[in-house]
Amino acid sequence: MKRLRALVFVAFALPVFAADPLPSWNDGAAKRSVVDFLAKVTKAGSPLFVPSAERIAVFDNDGTLWAEQPFYFQLAFALDRVRALAPEHPEWKDKEPFASLLKGDVKAALAGGEPAIFQVVMATHSGMTTDEFEQIVKEWIATARHPKFKRRFTELVYQPMFELLAYLRANSFKTFIVSGGGIEFMRAFAEKVYGIPPEQVIGSSGKHKFELRDGKPVLVKLAEIDFIDDKEGKPVAINKFIGRRPILAFGNSDGDLQMLQWTAAGKGARFMGLVHHTDTEREWAYDRKSSVGRLDKALDEATLRGWTVVSMKNDWRRIFPFDNQR
Amino acid sequence: MKRLRALVFVAFALPVFAADPLPSWNDGAAKRSVVDFLAKVTKAGSPLFVPSAERIAVFDNDGTLWAEQPFYFQLAFALDRVRALAPEHPEWKDKEPFASLLKGDVKAALAGGEPAIFQVVMATHSGMTTDEFEQIVKEWIATARHPKFKRRFTELVYQPMFELLAYLRANSFKTFIVSGGGIEFMRAFAEKVYGIPPEQVIGSSGKHKFELRDGKPVLVKLAEIDFIDDKEGKPVAINKFIGRRPILAFGNSDGDLQMLQWTAAGKGARFMGLVHHTDTEREWAYDRKSSVGRLDKALDEATLRGWTVVSMKNDWRRIFPFDNQR
Repeated sequence: MKRLRALVFVAFALPVFAADPLPSWNDGAAKRSVVDFLAKVTKAGSPLFVPSAERIAVFDNDGTLWAEQPFYFQLAFALDRVRALAPEHPEWKDKEPFASLLKGDVKAALAGGEPAIFQVVMATHSGMTTDEFEQIVKEWIATARHPKFKRRFTELVYQPMFELLAYLRANSFKTFIVSGGGIEFMRAFAEKVYGIPPEQVIGSSGKHKFELRDGKPVLVKLAEIDFIDDKEGKPVAINKFIGRRPILAFGNSDGDLQMLQWTAAGKGARFMGLVHHTDTEREWAYDRKSSVGRLDKALDEATLRGWTVVSMKNDWRRIFPFDNQR
Repeated sequence: MKRLRALVFVAFALPVFAADPLPSWNDGAAKRSVVDFLAKVTKAGSPLFVPSAERIAVFDNDGTLWAEQPFYFQLAFALDRVRALAPEHPEWKDKEPFASLLKGDVKAALAGGEPAIFQVVMATHSGMTTDEFEQIVKEWIATARHPKFKRRFTELVYQPMFELLAYLRANSFKTFIVSGGGIEFMRAFAEKVYGIPPEQVIGSSGKHKFELRDGKPVLVKLAEIDFIDDKEGKPVAINKFIGRRPILAFGNSDGDLQMLQWTAAGKGARFMGLVHHTDTEREWAYDRKSSVGRLDKALDEATLRGWTVVSMKNDWRRIFPFDNQR
């Protein structure tokens, strides 16, 4: 009886996260900075306590929650769509960047830089209704495979960031994605993959037209940019969609710098983090000179201001859910 | 002991809302339609059951959650701001619509129609940072008085809609505002007044510019429209901000028609409601011919499709929180 009582006591004395809430993080400064921040803002009576309603956390997606090499996954989607739509577009055979793409020469197709990418994205992300687009993305994401890992793209998510999202939500945080990626592309899988509902996914967007088709209302995706959610666009989008300043922000590139600055400039306790891609073996290593996810100015500012820089190689025991723990 | 057990039993047998969740609604078809809808979508195992994550409810603000006569309250704010800012703008003395306004002739000032209103709104809603604007609205809303009722504007909210918002939230709904009003104007008080957090307030917006001022990031409000959240704009905004279709929508004017159509077009159980201003005694009576909150086409469509039309006079026992119950 005494033993039973002792057991009951132990059970109730355990905090909410009795086990390590971040098992895929190595013990070290990065992990400690996260745990310390959470403890400070959630402890009732602490001078840095933050009420639940104001516990807003924002995360970039590409390179922060899932991988982004050898190119952004949404571009892989667009390239697959060009191939799928080619029979309806005989004119693409003689028109760049489509002609090179259809010959299988992605490099030549993308040599046209941003205007070429813009053409590919617009040709594959407009002209259908929002419901149709959602269906197309869902089918693609369920079947398409990453060129190097030969796994579904949604398997290339970072296990340590998963754990961080869950840890934050268990502490009454609302977790948002604030990404340069397409808002409707991400929403098609973010709830299932990250547990982040569509209304907490913010991204770049095209314009839409409301129409009645045979009396039934539809929203048609137009071939016109509405908003680019990158760099200065990120704090603008945070203000527009969330309407209050996050207390935690995580990114991995210069595109996230302004979001981190905006988060840092609020009163009280703040957490700013960068994922630094330093693992050639399990993932990729790139920063100042990469064309995808360049991390240069933000790395300098993080060092200067003491933001948390997470080295994937040193700070993460496991990167992808399918990795063995080290 | 038997009596105690009986009491305990009764206490536990009570449903979550033992008392009437909508005490300011008269018994009748409108109230019944709300209660029946909630029962259908929340009953586990029912063929019309909707999981919590998809329980999205959208509400117009002006004329639906609070009053909108003799003119939209945000316009009252803009007029007060013109008066407050006049000393910094000597040129307004000779420039319409400002000149008439400053002479106290609101009618003459607004005779210029939408372009005049646009000028007044832009002059008073731009040129400052988002933080500064929030402070200005908070100070105004705490002190300004309605011209007829001589009460603070936030007292002119509809008690029955308050009860409906609470009833929905108690049933795991997420409640959103989707209004033609200014998004930052509403966010300055919506959480305190309606219990609706900023990230669930959607409205019309201006553009913003991210700037570093002495190293400190700010968002400056520009004198440029970003988005008008009215008519066809409402489903577009719902798609952009929420990313899933509401199952309940409430409005009061033709500006809400497309939002109601968009809600109605989804699968499964749906609730579409209109507040009909029919009470000359306690509030106002207006519909097809009103310049503010015109209700004409949407009233026809509601009748045709069997949407719920709430008569303020007949369906509401109490309109404002300060009214006596009838």
